[in-house]
Amino acid sequence: MIKYVSAGDSHGEMLVGILEGLPSGMQIDEDRINFYLSLRQKGYGRGRRMEIENDRVKIVSGLFDGKTTGAPLGIIIENRDFKLNKTRREFTVPRPGHSDYGGTVKYEFSNAAIPSERTSARSTAVDVAAGSLLLDYLKIFGVKIFFFVKSIGEVSKDINTIDEETFEKVISNDLFSLPEMYEDFKSAVDRAIEKRDTVGGEGVVVVKNVPPGIGGYGNFSDKLDGIIAQFVMSVPSVKYVEIGNFKPGVYGTEFHDEIFSNGKRIFRKTNSAGGIEGGVSNGEEIVVKFGFKPIPTVLKGINSVDLTDLSNKKSVYVRSDTCVVPAGTLVSAMRISIALSTVFSSQFGGDTVSDVSKNFDFWLSRRKKFWQR
Amino acid sequence: MIKYVSAGDSHGEMLVGILEGLPSGMQIDEDRINFYLSLRQKGYGRGRRMEIENDRVKIVSGLFDGKTTGAPLGIIIENRDFKLNKTRREFTVPRPGHSDYGGTVKYEFSNAAIPSERTSARSTAVDVAAGSLLLDYLKIFGVKIFFFVKSIGEVSKDINTIDEETFEKVISNDLFSLPEMYEDFKSAVDRAIEKRDTVGGEGVVVVKNVPPGIGGYGNFSDKLDGIIAQFVMSVPSVKYVEIGNFKPGVYGTEFHDEIFSNGKRIFRKTNSAGGIEGGVSNGEEIVVKFGFKPIPTVLKGINSVDLTDLSNKKSVYVRSDTCVVPAGTLVSAMRISIALSTVFSSQFGGDTVSDVSKNFDFWLSRRKKFWQR
Amino acid sequence: MIKYVSAGDSHGEMLVGILEGLPSGMQIDEDRINFYLSLRQKGYGRGRRMEIENDRVKIVSGLFDGKTTGAPLGIIIENRDFKLNKTRREFTVPRPGHSDYGGTVKYEFSNAAIPSERTSARSTAVDVAAGSLLLDYLKIFGVKIFFFVKSIGEVSKDINTIDEETFEKVISNDLFSLPEMYEDFKSAVDRAIEKRDTVGGEGVVVVKNVPPGIGGYGNFSDKLDGIIAQFVMSVPSVKYVEIGNFKPGVYGTEFHDEIFSNGKRIFRKTNSAGGIEGGVSNGEEIVVKFGFKPIPTVLKGINSVDLTDLSNKKSVYVRSDTCVVPAGTLVSAMRISIALSTVFSSQFGGDTVSDVSKNFDFWLSRRKKFWQR
Amino acid sequence: MIKYVSAGDSHGEMLVGILEGLPSGMQIDEDRINFYLSLRQKGYGRGRRMEIENDRVKIVSGLFDGKTTGAPLGIIIENRDFKLNKTRREFTVPRPGHSDYGGTVKYEFSNAAIPSERTSARSTAVDVAAGSLLLDYLKIFGVKIFFFVKSIGEVSKDINTIDEETFEKVISNDLFSLPEMYEDFKSAVDRAIEKRDTVGGEGVVVVKNVPPGIGGYGNFSDKLDGIIAQFVMSVPSVKYVEIGNFKPGVYGTEFHDEIFSNGKRIFRKTNSAGGIEGGVSNGEEIVVKFGFKPIPTVLKGINSVDLTDLSNKKSVYVRSDTCVVPAGTLVSAMRISIALSTVFSSQFGGDTVSDVSKNFDFWLSRRKKFWQR
Repeated sequence: MIKYVSAGDSHGEMLVGILEGLPSGMQIDEDRINFYLSLRQKGYGRGRRMEIENDRVKIVSGLFDGKTTGAPLGIIIENRDFKLNKTRREFTVPRPGHSDYGGTVKYEFSNAAIPSERTSARSTAVDVAAGSLLLDYLKIFGVKIFFFVKSIGEVSKDINTIDEETFEKVISNDLFSLPEMYEDFKSAVDRAIEKRDTVGGEGVVVVKNVPPGIGGYGNFSDKLDGIIAQFVMSVPSVKYVEIGNFKPGVYGTEFHDEIFSNGKRIFRKTNSAGGIEGGVSNGEEIVVKFGFKPIPTVLKGINSVDLTDLSNKKSVYVRSDTCVVPAGTLVSAMRISIALSTVFSSQFGGDTVSDVSKNFDFWLSRRKKFWQR
Repeated sequence: MIKYVSAGDSHGEMLVGILEGLPSGMQIDEDRINFYLSLRQKGYGRGRRMEIENDRVKIVSGLFDGKTTGAPLGIIIENRDFKLNKTRREFTVPRPGHSDYGGTVKYEFSNAAIPSERTSARSTAVDVAAGSLLLDYLKIFGVKIFFFVKSIGEVSKDINTIDEETFEKVISNDLFSLPEMYEDFKSAVDRAIEKRDTVGGEGVVVVKNVPPGIGGYGNFSDKLDGIIAQFVMSVPSVKYVEIGNFKPGVYGTEFHDEIFSNGKRIFRKTNSAGGIEGGVSNGEEIVVKFGFKPIPTVLKGINSVDLTDLSNKKSVYVRSDTCVVPAGTLVSAMRISIALSTVFSSQFGGDTVSDVSKNFDFWLSRRKKFWQR
Repeated sequence: MIKYVSAGDSHGEMLVGILEGLPSGMQIDEDRINFYLSLRQKGYGRGRRMEIENDRVKIVSGLFDGKTTGAPLGIIIENRDFKLNKTRREFTVPRPGHSDYGGTVKYEFSNAAIPSERTSARSTAVDVAAGSLLLDYLKIFGVKIFFFVKSIGEVSKDINTIDEETFEKVISNDLFSLPEMYEDFKSAVDRAIEKRDTVGGEGVVVVKNVPPGIGGYGNFSDKLDGIIAQFVMSVPSVKYVEIGNFKPGVYGTEFHDEIFSNGKRIFRKTNSAGGIEGGVSNGEEIVVKFGFKPIPTVLKGINSVDLTDLSNKKSVYVRSDTCVVPAGTLVSAMRISIALSTVFSSQFGGDTVSDVSKNFDFWLSRRKKFWQR
Repeated sequence: MIKYVSAGDSHGEMLVGILEGLPSGMQIDEDRINFYLSLRQKGYGRGRRMEIENDRVKIVSGLFDGKTTGAPLGIIIENRDFKLNKTRREFTVPRPGHSDYGGTVKYEFSNAAIPSERTSARSTAVDVAAGSLLLDYLKIFGVKIFFFVKSIGEVSKDINTIDEETFEKVISNDLFSLPEMYEDFKSAVDRAIEKRDTVGGEGVVVVKNVPPGIGGYGNFSDKLDGIIAQFVMSVPSVKYVEIGNFKPGVYGTEFHDEIFSNGKRIFRKTNSAGGIEGGVSNGEEIVVKFGFKPIPTVLKGINSVDLTDLSNKKSVYVRSDTCVVPAGTLVSAMRISIALSTVFSSQFGGDTVSDVSKNFDFWLSRRKKFWQR
C-alpha cells in the first residue's frame, strides 16, 4: 500500500519524504515534479523567499534507470537559502493564528520561533513533490486532478468544475485563477498588501475520471470523504473542507443527484454530492472545496503577549507572504493526490505497473454496464 | 493508545465495537452510555424504527467489578427489531445520495439494499456507546463535550458556543436545539414532513477545557484539526467540516485572535481559530461545525435507474427519518470524543487512571504559567 | 486490506472478533470453523474446561445469504461456562511464567487473577475462528496450511513437511501427532500428569502452494518472515519462532538451497530457507517452527510470593491443562492464516472474490515462466 | 508515539530515515551514533566495502541547538562509494538464499541485481543510526542494551547474559566476542575464508533495567515478545528468534522462574522466560537470541539457473563478506532499541524529556513495592 511520511524544517538543510509501496516499473517524470514545485513557489502575493529558492526534487532511492523498483523512494528537496540565511530566528511573542503559542507550550520551548520550523508552508514542498509524482500513479486509472482558486478575500466566483483546457490557463497565471477572475483576485491581494495585512480565500479541487465504487465504508477510516478531509484539513491555514455543494436550505428531492443512464454509463446531471455517496465514489467528479484563513504573519503585527513575562506586545513580523491561497490550493490538490493514491493502491494492489493496470482494467470491465471511460 | 473499530449491519443481530487501550481502573457508567443511546434514538423527525428499538449497551469484556482492566472492551448493542423484522429487504433501484449505487458497483451485488446495511445511521449507535463511554476518559483531563443543532433547513442561528446550563436544555429537547430556536426548527421539520421530503442542517460541537498544546504537527496525520475532520466527515450525511469561523472576506488582522494574559492564563477574546492553530490546541474552546445533507430516502422517490436493466425508475422508499440533524450532531460529538481520546492517550500514555491523571497534572503544572483551570 | 482485532475475557460472557477487509461474495463455511474450534478444544492433556465448553462460532454481521458483503465480520464465541461458573477467581500469589505478575504491576491490580482473564489460552478461540474462516480466503490463491506437533517434552521427531494425507491423520488424533509418534507423545504427557507437572514441546506449520514473490522488503514491517514471527511469537507460551532450518555449523554452500528448473517451475531440492528469502517467498513450502514452554499452572505449585505482603508462598493452582502443544500448534497455524491473509490482501487487492481471483491469476500468468501450479 | 521508516538503496546516493515522535529537549549524541556506525562497519570477515565507507550520520531536521524539537528527525547517511563505483551491477542468475529470485519474480525485473539494492545489509546502516540515537531515549528509563556474538559456525558458548564491563570488551573486538572466545571465532571465520565459503552464527541481546509491566496483552500486536520478534526476524539473514531459554525436555516446575522478594524488588534466580511473561516484561533482563544463516554470496558460487533461459548456471559472486554475525548482532540490538522505544513511548507518552522522565518516575514510584532500581 502506498504510504507517505516526511521530515524537514523550514530553515534546515533539506526536506525529506519517504514514499512507500509504489509498484515497480513506473517511469518518474522529474520535470513534471519540478514544474509543480515551481507552481508552488510562484503565486502573486508570495514573499521574497520564493525568489531565492528554486526547488528541485532529488530522488535518492527506489529507482533503476528512472523507473520505480518497488523499494521506498527517498525524496529530497534542498533548502537553497540554507547557506544564505544562517541567522537563526528567535522570538518570544507568538503570532496569533500560528503554531507559535501551542507549539511552545507543548514542547516547552524558550523560543517561539521553533514550532513554525515545522508548521510553516515550507514543509509542504515535499508534499507537492510526492503528490505530483503520484499523478503518474493515478494516471494508471485514468484519474486527473485539476484545481483552481475560487475566492480571494471578498472576491469569489462560485463554480464547481473546470475542464482541462481551462485548467491549463489556471496554472499559467500566478493566482491559479480562472482567466475572468484574475484582475479581481489581483486587486484583492493588492488591497491587502496596501494595508500591510494578509488575506485568505478558497480553493477547489476537481478529480476527474474516478469510477464509481472507489473508497469504502467498512469503518469510518475507510470512507473516501473522511480520508480526503484529513489530508486537506491538515494543510496549513485550511479551516474547512467540503465535499460537493452543501446548501442548508434545500430539501432532499432538490439536493440529491438524480440517476440517469445513457447506455454507456450511469450519470448525474447535477453534482451536489461532489462525487462521493456513503464514503464511496459515485462516478461523478470528486469536488473538494476548502477555505484558507489569512496567514498569521502580518506586517503591522497583532496584539499578543511576550511569553517570557506575559507583558503585552505586538507579534513579530517574519518574512512572509500576503496571500497563500494559490499555493495552498495546489498543496491541497497534491495532498488529495496522495490520499487517492493510498486508496487506489489498497483497492487494486499490484506489484508492477502492469499488475495494477490489469487489475484495474479487469475490475472496470466487470462493471462496464455501469461505467465506461 | 486508545483505538476503536466496529462491525454490525443495520438489520443484523447486533452491533459490535472493540475499544482498545483504556487505562485500568476507570469506572464505566453504563447508565450514561444508555442515556446517550436514548438521545440518539429520539429526535423530532425520526422514523418509527426509533419507537421499536430501545438501545442498551452490553460490555462483554475488559471490566472487573465495573472498572476497566486495560484489556479491550467488547461493546455490544443488540438490534431489538432483529426478531421482529425478518423480512429481508431487496431492491435494485438505488437511492440517489445513498451508498446504494457506489456500494453495489464496488461489491457487485445484485441487491442494492446491501450497502446500506453497513452505511445506514444504525451503525452509529455503537459509535455513540464508545464515544459516551470515553467521556469519562476525557474527564480525567477535565474535558467536556457539548453540542447543539445550529440550523435545520433554512432556519439557522449563528452562535459558536454554549455553556453547560444551556447544554442541559439542549439535550432535553428532541431537536437538540437552543430553547429559542425549538419552534422554528420544529416547523422546518414539519414542512419537510408535509412535503414528503427530507431536510438537512448544521450542528456544532464545543469542546471545553482543552489546554493549549494538545495535538501535534510532526506529520499531517498528527494534526488535531485533520484528525477531527476525518472522524466527522465520515459520519453519515456530513458534507463539510469546519474548525472555528472561516469568513472569506476578512483580513489577517481581523481574523486572528489576539493574545492576552490575565495572570491565570493566556486567553483570547475572540475564537476565529476554533481553538486549533497549526494542528495544536491553543487553550480556547475547540469549535467544530459541520453540515448534513438531507437524507436520501424520501417518501416521494427521486428519479433513478433500475440497475438490472438501466430503465428509469423512482427510487424506493425505505422506512426512514425526515431529519437526522439532531442525531447526527450527537454522533459527531461522540466521534470527536473518540478522536480526542486517541490524541490524549497518545500524548499522556499511562497504564492506570492514576498514571494518566498524574501524567496530565504534572504536564499541566509545568505549563501553569500559560494555562490553569 | 484484511485486518483483525479481538476482545474477550476468559470468564466473560463471550469472545468478540472483528475481521475487516474481506472481499464480497466469499462463502463462509461455519461448519469448518466449528470443526477447527473443536480441534482447539480437544487435545490429550487438556483440562476439564474443554469438556464443559463446545465452542460454536456466530457471525453477526458482514454476511448476506451466507456470503461476505465486504462489511466487517463480527465474530462471536460465547463462553458456555459463563453461566455455570460464576465464582470469581481471586488470588494474590502470581504463577511464575504467567502474566499474573507483570500484568498486576502494570495495571496496579489487587487481584493477580485479572491479567490471565485476557492472556489465558481461552482468548485464542476467536483467533482460531478468524484464521479458519480465512482458510477460504487463502484458497483463492490455492494456499493450504498444514501443521503438526513435532515434539512433546523430550520426545521429538525432526521432520519438516507433511503431505495432505498425513495431515488428515494428524488432525484426527488428539495430539496432532504423526501416527508413528502418537504413543510416545502420549507417554510424555502421561509422565507429566503423573508428576503433577506440565510439559512443553514444538510445532511446525507448513504452508503449501505459495508462489514466489509474496511478501516484501520495502521496510522491515513488509517482510513476510517478520510478520509471521510477530503473529506466532505472540501466541501464548511460544518462546521461539524459526523459519526453515537454522543450523549454526553449516557453510553457505551447504545451507543455501540450490536453484533448479524443471520446465514447469523453478524449484529447490532442499528447503533450508523455509520458503522465505529476503522477506519474500521463494515458491517452496513456507515452514515455520516454534516452541512452547510448559504452561505455568502446575498442580504442585511453584515458589512465588504473595504480592500483598511479599511473603513466600507456593503459586496457586488454577484449573488448567498439562500440555497445550497440540492446541497451541493449531492456534499458531491459524495465526499464520491471518498473517498471510493480510499480506495477500495487501498485495492483490480486490473488492470481490472474482476481482481477487482474477488479479491473482493474471499476476501468476505473467510469472508462469517461473512458477506454475 | 515513536515511529521509524527508512528508504535507501545499496548503491544509491544516500540512505534516509525518518524518526517521528521523539520528545523535545533530548540531546543528540552524534559521536555515539557515529561510533555505532563504525562498529557496524568493522567486523572480522567483512569485505572490502567496509574499508571504502566510513559512515557518518547527518540529521537534517528536528533539532535546534543539538536538541530535539519534537518534529521528525530526517536521518541521512551518504553512501561514500556512490561516487567511486558508478558501474551498475547487472546479472540474471539469482544467488540462492538472497532476495534475487523472489524479488525478481515479484517485481518482474530483467535484472536480478535490483532486489538486493534494498535487501542487502547496507540498508541496515540507517537502522543502526536510528537505534543508537534512541539509546538516549531509553536512558530516560534507565534501560541499557548489551549484545554479543554467541556462536560462529560450529563454535559456540552458551551464556545468557553479560555485564557492562564485559560488554565494553565485546565491542572493542572485531567479532563482538567474549574475550575467551575470540580466537576460536576468528578461526571459524578463517576456515570459511579458506574454503571460499561463508559462515553463520548466533547473537544475543540483553536488555537491562526494564521494570516489570512494560508491553501489553490487549491484542497480539501489543505483546512485547511479538514486537521484538518482528523487528529481529526481519534483520537480513536472521532465521530464528528466541526469548529466554527454550528447552523442550523440561517440565513446568523446572522451566519457570521462581519468584522471590528481597525487600527491594521482586526477582528471580533463573531467567528461562528471558524477561517476558504473557507479553509483558517481568523485571528481569530481556534476553533475545537469534540465528544468522551464512550469507548467500559465496566466492565459489552455488548452483542456480539463469532467469533469462532457465539454463543451469553458478550464482554470481558479488563483492561481499564472509561472516556478518557480528554486524548482524549489532543491527539486531539496534532494532530492539527501536522496538522498545516505540513501546515505551506508547506507554509513557510525554511531549518533552521532562514529561517523559516524570511520567516514568511517577509510574515507578507507585510500583516501588515490587521493583526499584
